[in-house]
Amino acid sequence: MVESNRRILLASRPVGKPTPDNFRLDSAPLSEPDEGQVLLKILYLSLDPYMRGRMNAGKSYAKPVEIGDVMEGGTVGRVVRSRHPDFAEGDVVLSHSGWQSFALAEGSTLRKLDPAAAPISTALGILGMPGFTAYAGLLTIGQPKPGETVVVAAASGAVGSAVGQIAKIKGARAVGIAGGADKCAFVRDELGFDAVVDHRAPDFEARLKAACPQGIDVYFENVGGHVWDAVFPLLNDFARVPVCGLIAQYNDAAAHSGPDRLPGVLRDVLSRSLLIRGFIQREFVDQRPAFYSQMAEWIASGQIRYREDVVDGLEAAPEAFIGLLEGRNFGKLVVRIAE
Amino acid sequence: MVESNRRILLASRPVGKPTPDNFRLDSAPLSEPDEGQVLLKILYLSLDPYMRGRMNAGKSYAKPVEIGDVMEGGTVGRVVRSRHPDFAEGDVVLSHSGWQSFALAEGSTLRKLDPAAAPISTALGILGMPGFTAYAGLLTIGQPKPGETVVVAAASGAVGSAVGQIAKIKGARAVGIAGGADKCAFVRDELGFDAVVDHRAPDFEARLKAACPQGIDVYFENVGGHVWDAVFPLLNDFARVPVCGLIAQYNDAAAHSGPDRLPGVLRDVLSRSLLIRGFIQREFVDQRPAFYSQMAEWIASGQIRYREDVVDGLEAAPEAFIGLLEGRNFGKLVVRIAE
Repeated sequence: MVESNRRILLASRPVGKPTPDNFRLDSAPLSEPDEGQVLLKILYLSLDPYMRGRMNAGKSYAKPVEIGDVMEGGTVGRVVRSRHPDFAEGDVVLSHSGWQSFALAEGSTLRKLDPAAAPISTALGILGMPGFTAYAGLLTIGQPKPGETVVVAAASGAVGSAVGQIAKIKGARAVGIAGGADKCAFVRDELGFDAVVDHRAPDFEARLKAACPQGIDVYFENVGGHVWDAVFPLLNDFARVPVCGLIAQYNDAAAHSGPDRLPGVLRDVLSRSLLIRGFIQREFVDQRPAFYSQMAEWIASGQIRYREDVVDGLEAAPEAFIGLLEGRNFGKLVVRIAE
Repeated sequence: MVESNRRILLASRPVGKPTPDNFRLDSAPLSEPDEGQVLLKILYLSLDPYMRGRMNAGKSYAKPVEIGDVMEGGTVGRVVRSRHPDFAEGDVVLSHSGWQSFALAEGSTLRKLDPAAAPISTALGILGMPGFTAYAGLLTIGQPKPGETVVVAAASGAVGSAVGQIAKIKGARAVGIAGGADKCAFVRDELGFDAVVDHRAPDFEARLKAACPQGIDVYFENVGGHVWDAVFPLLNDFARVPVCGLIAQYNDAAAHSGPDRLPGVLRDVLSRSLLIRGFIQREFVDQRPAFYSQMAEWIASGQIRYREDVVDGLEAAPEAFIGLLEGRNFGKLVVRIAE
């Protein structure tokens, strides 16, 4: 085998925003699969906000990436050598192989994809972890009822776009929050949200209030920051707040100056009987089979639409990831590693 | 009828801690009941932390008491005149008549008590709203499992004492937090908690940690303040935090200086998949019949014990209430208005 494996390693831990220096491209020889393994050529790499947490030393809900290790991430790859009976050369699979161009993987950890059923990159987006995060978090924790108002930020993104559209399917009113006119137009016109508010508008809080005349019953929290501050006063009694991400504060390095907002939030939690619940989608693994079939149906019927932001080449991953944390992507961000 | 009705009115709204000036004792003539009403002679008045919220102008989860109105509160009274077919003179009933010595009440709002079954004052405590708050909040939101650790503050009080004992009945480990050696001894020796920690101890946080070697799975929040800060780092993944009260911050008048603890709390909510849920017991009204029979059984079998702190005379209510907010009571605080 003549090709070598290009990999992007964690070179150093970021303080605040990641910079290109935190990543290092290297090259390593390819290994042969052991019994039960396959060798994968990676076709697509998913870039997701949670990866920022893996760059820190402290334990979050998963172990950090060690300095010098390959950056972690979901991937779609093609089997180029198989020593597992369920996989043959040419099969396309979902794996968690990280930021590299080839990878060995245990066959037992892989899910085979059907390229005829859906574009294979969607296994990293609407038909993958982000879509399932939206589905499980909204339906299990948010539990939107017909006529209720569901608000979600990063509404043009991988998770947010699915949250709003599923809310609509369930009979709720979907209000999206997005950054900039293009994203807002997409959320309203393409995704069919009932209303959309630009969080960069100087009168963002007033606009959000106007967009939610009946208050907010479900706030699907995936950003935090100033969006939380605008949403919180609008939450109705018994509102539910599934928390799956806090991208606005992932880059925070220093302590937060006052005033201390916690006592006010707890007061409102009590006086309005609010539910706040952090979650990671894998907690709901039992629901995955139902999700795969339901979401495929919704996509086929046109009830759920999605948008991908495809970046070309492994080398582009660090810059694209840094942009993701600043909201520069438009749709689910994936890196095309190979054709 | 020669007697007149003595009443304690809200004279002014407190800024921070209530003072005796915020209350005014007055006297008013007694009225005769209309059709469907009864006239009650009040025997016991319940004093509870939530009343502090009613003294503020802003809406919390209930309307405020207006200036010049009788202070609100749960009461046990004896029927002295009845124009409702279900009630006869001499019947003892639970009502919500407020801080006064007599009251008119609609018969339809009353619950008849059986003085032979339990001391009538317990209808304001272990067999009433506080006991039900503990029962519904712990079992429905907290959902303690055998072997888990349940922590509750104000553990010698009306709600906390029931929370810990119900947790024990469900097979969990109960850790109480209380103020002072007497209360701690009572919680451990009389109520049978597995451990108790004095929140006034200078090394409170370290002691709490030592008392919870497996971390905390359920924190029943009824105080807030520095207890929250000590508990929060010890919460396990998937811990549940029912919030029924925040007595430590009810008297707060000013904005809270920094640092801002909210981003850190949200980060932990996410990384540890925590549940925080405010509630008011009346949300769970369907569970009340089950509660009454179950709690009566637990008391009869000795599995649940309780303590009352009885103050004599309506005039003593303001001072007793001010003391309640500072933790000066020892057990469920009730005012005996008449024999």
